[in-house]
Amino acid sequence: MRQIKLVLEYDGTAYRGWQSQRKGPFTIQEILEKKLARFEKDAHRVVVYGASRTDAGVHALGQVATFRTKRPHAPEVFKKALNSMLPEDMRVLSARDVPEDFHPRKSAVKKTYFYLIALDPPAPVFFRRYAWEMPWPLNLEAMREAAGYLTGKMDFSAFRAAGCTARDAVREIGEIRMEELGEGWFFGAALNGRFVKISLTASGFLRHMARNIVGTLVEVGKGRMTPAQVKSILESGDRRLSGPTAPARGLFLDKVFY
Amino acid sequence: MRQIKLVLEYDGTAYRGWQSQRKGPFTIQEILEKKLARFEKDAHRVVVYGASRTDAGVHALGQVATFRTKRPHAPEVFKKALNSMLPEDMRVLSARDVPEDFHPRKSAVKKTYFYLIALDPPAPVFFRRYAWEMPWPLNLEAMREAAGYLTGKMDFSAFRAAGCTARDAVREIGEIRMEELGEGWFFGAALNGRFVKISLTASGFLRHMARNIVGTLVEVGKGRMTPAQVKSILESGDRRLSGPTAPARGLFLDKVFY
Repeated sequence: MRQIKLVLEYDGTAYRGWQSQRKGPFTIQEILEKKLARFEKDAHRVVVYGASRTDAGVHALGQVATFRTKRPHAPEVFKKALNSMLPEDMRVLSARDVPEDFHPRKSAVKKTYFYLIALDPPAPVFFRRYAWEMPWPLNLEAMREAAGYLTGKMDFSAFRAAGCTARDAVREIGEIRMEELGEGWFFGAALNGRFVKISLTASGFLRHMARNIVGTLVEVGKGRMTPAQVKSILESGDRRLSGPTAPARGLFLDKVFY
Repeated sequence: MRQIKLVLEYDGTAYRGWQSQRKGPFTIQEILEKKLARFEKDAHRVVVYGASRTDAGVHALGQVATFRTKRPHAPEVFKKALNSMLPEDMRVLSARDVPEDFHPRKSAVKKTYFYLIALDPPAPVFFRRYAWEMPWPLNLEAMREAAGYLTGKMDFSAFRAAGCTARDAVREIGEIRMEELGEGWFFGAALNGRFVKISLTASGFLRHMARNIVGTLVEVGKGRMTPAQVKSILESGDRRLSGPTAPARGLFLDKVFY
């Protein structure tokens, strides 16, 4: 059967994440499945697979999803129809046919997430849904040093959530990039607001891994932990030693690479 | 009595505008008054004056407001306390003492509003609350020509709302600037999305004037009206001839000049 790949953008604020354990119309996946079912004459359930199971409140600029269909419409027709049916906080950026053996998660070679921290809160009101507001100054140099210890192919058990079901915890982080965005920008208007953007590119992410890494780097930035401690926490494999989970609202699934 | 001037940023989506005729906690002004009343020992009503009575759904990057108080706190204390009490979609950018004869509206010499139009909808989900989504192509050159006829000191009766209570309709528009923002921007991530930004700077604005001008310019952009027609509509003073009122969500009070 024909398979279509979608690239999706969404504001995760209102949703219980990509995939929910419980029934309900409040996950991204379920909304897509419900809307796509309208295309199918025989009303069979449409199953949508995603590249990443983004948590409740996490946003996406480039989530990738697939579904199968017998309908003959051009992919562009699915895109336009979905965009007219989807709620305001979700949109389809592109749709195209892909081979049957393409799988949005298994075929992915790496993914980039980024995390936004707003310094000197309150943040600009237009971006408060999208950033962790940080009332303390952050030592970016120390955070960069700590991030260096987390780059490479290693066991990230110390940064996985308790409920993580992945068989093994070895992942390869290619890069953790930290930028300070000097001034806010809003359609050419300067906003009072400085942000730190942390971009993480890895072969894959364990449950809460990106948010646990950010939470730990922020502990370093605040001076509550040294970069060397982050190295030993990683080696310990003990989640109880790493920092708190950073809030979902600051996290974005940026891009999935195939 | 001492007077304090606030500069405010807000997302107007959830509010019935700056000033409401009816009672209720759902206008920006009323929320500020309620929070500021907490500072006053004798629980007298605090009255807040604003530079602009922004409509329901209109946003602000630089609204200016004043209130009077007998409290001795530094302006910075009011700013911090307000920011800790205000809802997430409002923040105080600055607070300072001003002379008693300063009036946020009457002392203003000019104001700049800007209006955002998102081309090729749907717009990026992060900006849909802040733009008018335009499914038709717009001829910006024709819009610029029409805007030229609206620049200067003239009677803007053809662009005022029916309920406008201003005594006379003569205002001076110093500049209408139109920019196409070639690509979306979101913290360094490129977004699929082109925007048109229309900035209007004038000595003052009649009720709905900015939105009626934008609505009329869009008629020109779509080819439903010629730039020359805009000139004769202005001269006619007849509101029935000008274009529809552009939606509130795209409008921002950018800056008030003193």
